[in-house]
Amino acid sequence: MNWLLPEYIQDMLPDEAWRIEAMRSELLGLLRRSGYQLVAPPLLEYAESLLINESEDMDLRSFKLVDQLSGRTLALRADITPQVARIDAHLLNRQGVTRLCYAGSVLHTQPSGLMRTREPLQIGAELYGHAGIESDLEVQRLMLQTLALIGIDGVHLDLGHVGVFSALVRHAGIAHGLEADLFNALQRKDVPGVRALAAGLPQDVQAALLALPQLYGGIEVIARARAVLPAYPEVAAALDQLGQAAAHLKGLAHDIGIDLAELRGYQYHSGMVFAAYHAGSHDAIALGGRYDDVGKAFGRARPATGFSMDLRQLHGLLAKQAQPQAIYAPYRQDAALDAAIARQRAQGEIVVVDLLGKAEHRAELNCDRELVLRDGNWVVAAIRN
Amino acid sequence: MNWLLPEYIQDMLPDEAWRIEAMRSELLGLLRRSGYQLVAPPLLEYAESLLINESEDMDLRSFKLVDQLSGRTLALRADITPQVARIDAHLLNRQGVTRLCYAGSVLHTQPSGLMRTREPLQIGAELYGHAGIESDLEVQRLMLQTLALIGIDGVHLDLGHVGVFSALVRHAGIAHGLEADLFNALQRKDVPGVRALAAGLPQDVQAALLALPQLYGGIEVIARARAVLPAYPEVAAALDQLGQAAAHLKGLAHDIGIDLAELRGYQYHSGMVFAAYHAGSHDAIALGGRYDDVGKAFGRARPATGFSMDLRQLHGLLAKQAQPQAIYAPYRQDAALDAAIARQRAQGEIVVVDLLGKAEHRAELNCDRELVLRDGNWVVAAIRN
Repeated sequence: MNWLLPEYIQDMLPDEAWRIEAMRSELLGLLRRSGYQLVAPPLLEYAESLLINESEDMDLRSFKLVDQLSGRTLALRADITPQVARIDAHLLNRQGVTRLCYAGSVLHTQPSGLMRTREPLQIGAELYGHAGIESDLEVQRLMLQTLALIGIDGVHLDLGHVGVFSALVRHAGIAHGLEADLFNALQRKDVPGVRALAAGLPQDVQAALLALPQLYGGIEVIARARAVLPAYPEVAAALDQLGQAAAHLKGLAHDIGIDLAELRGYQYHSGMVFAAYHAGSHDAIALGGRYDDVGKAFGRARPATGFSMDLRQLHGLLAKQAQPQAIYAPYRQDAALDAAIARQRAQGEIVVVDLLGKAEHRAELNCDRELVLRDGNWVVAAIRN
Repeated sequence: MNWLLPEYIQDMLPDEAWRIEAMRSELLGLLRRSGYQLVAPPLLEYAESLLINESEDMDLRSFKLVDQLSGRTLALRADITPQVARIDAHLLNRQGVTRLCYAGSVLHTQPSGLMRTREPLQIGAELYGHAGIESDLEVQRLMLQTLALIGIDGVHLDLGHVGVFSALVRHAGIAHGLEADLFNALQRKDVPGVRALAAGLPQDVQAALLALPQLYGGIEVIARARAVLPAYPEVAAALDQLGQAAAHLKGLAHDIGIDLAELRGYQYHSGMVFAAYHAGSHDAIALGGRYDDVGKAFGRARPATGFSMDLRQLHGLLAKQAQPQAIYAPYRQDAALDAAIARQRAQGEIVVVDLLGKAEHRAELNCDRELVLRDGNWVVAAIRN
């Protein structure tokens, strides 16, 4: 029974592996041409370097090990974003805008959903050194382009902004403990809970907090929010950004929604946040947002925004696609045959040499054509069944 | 100091990462066209599934973890070969020849040399279901083709055969403990040690064991071996195979050597073994061999042969190569500019949009051309310094 894998851990077999490899390569090409330079941080690091957000969730999701060389605790990365922030902060040390991208496996102690793997293949892009909405729009646009490139249609894009909630917290002088409780209640859209927690707060803040769980829907939500939320400059600025993004991205997503109670990642996000959804998946299929403080733990807090997605999850949404079919070649010691095989491969064809000479194995080999000797020349012919 | 990495663990920064990504993609393309189907086994498995060779070395080199879901011990893979054997044995279950390839990171508790990383990027190919020399020749040839494809010149190929030593062991009825001691002494080329250990063995076996450490050099070694080794059929067959391989591979390597005391991997290899060396590296840069029993642990012992290499090690042998230069574009809300950027990217160019509008950052962005507005059209022009 030693061929059984742990729960939520899977092999990628040829039908899946070749397609995911092709997706990876196409997406990295798009990111590269868009000016995002590839980095590949390691699978494991000192735990303290990976767990910079003091997020209990990430801590619980990270496998820990002891390093025999140093005696210190290592963690397997559960997310690549903190590693890329470390590279921006310490290794590249550029003064201008830095665009980086990555693709690699991460490991989780627990699956994040019943359908999810513990070994997502995370791909993403990050933009550092620019605080304006232009960079938010660039990464949002790029995320939608990546989904379109691999053939994911009908994407619903949800836009939110943690600036609305954080402005209310700041203006009302809400203490840290209450802030966390309110945040949790809002995430659950638990209106009675929000009402009870907000009881002692100024009237306009109470009303605003109670309005947030209702402020989701189409882009008309932005106008509703202007009407019901206090006219703090930060709130107005956040709503302006959401309006600009919705206008800029129109046509790139199947539809765009606004959700002001969507505070996923509030602990580390600092501005606009966004998530792509698809009918084939209960969870978001791509996520991103602004998190300007991400580099602070490494001594260099630069503005930052980016997105990431799991290629295994995305592959699951696509219609099955058979591998390209191959050309069957007999095994002979024949220089002309070898040359014909090399020629086909140079043209991008898969050529499978049949070492056993058993035609009954052809079906396993996924061949629809064969190399045959006709009039002294090796030529490609369709396989007749 | 949380930006420091553990010893022998490194980031791949853009200059290295893009090149290794390109190598990976090129090599997987070659393997694919050669009929090797890609598989991607997981980074971690139950320890007992990964440590099938009862090799103490692999056990010590593997990081162990506890699975929270099952309470069982997991190991991070230190080698991908056993995983691919598991896939051949249990998941694909094909009757004919199965060709598989893979590319992925492995992790080691200790570096295997002072210059080595604890996170090699292993790429390789395996051929199952064929016991004849044709499959040995195919994988040897393919290994040399992969090295040539990424521009590694001057490769020295060493050929060996564990069948010679194992025939001596079998014919002389050498017990398991003595076999291990002899093996270790031969690996060290410790002639006095071999002499002492072989003292009680038949005269011809003694002489053969003492001859092995001298039986290395050019292909003339094969003829010398025929003269000095006992004429057991297995010995003759092994020497024949070495002769055939040396003849078949001539011209594909810079030079070919024979080493009959080279028993690396004797515990699991069962036939011809081979290793590629390069002046830039003390360690072998690619390794392979026949290991017909590899699937036995998974209940299906099929003939098998294959090779693997570390892309990070290979990258270190290549002359540095700058990343392709990019086109600099200003940021403007201008549909004609957006179209010009999209056009360049569609042609494969990297276009970097300068969100900050600071020309002094251009040097960081690796641009040698720029998009400029001339006579109402956005055109690409060389950047003048």
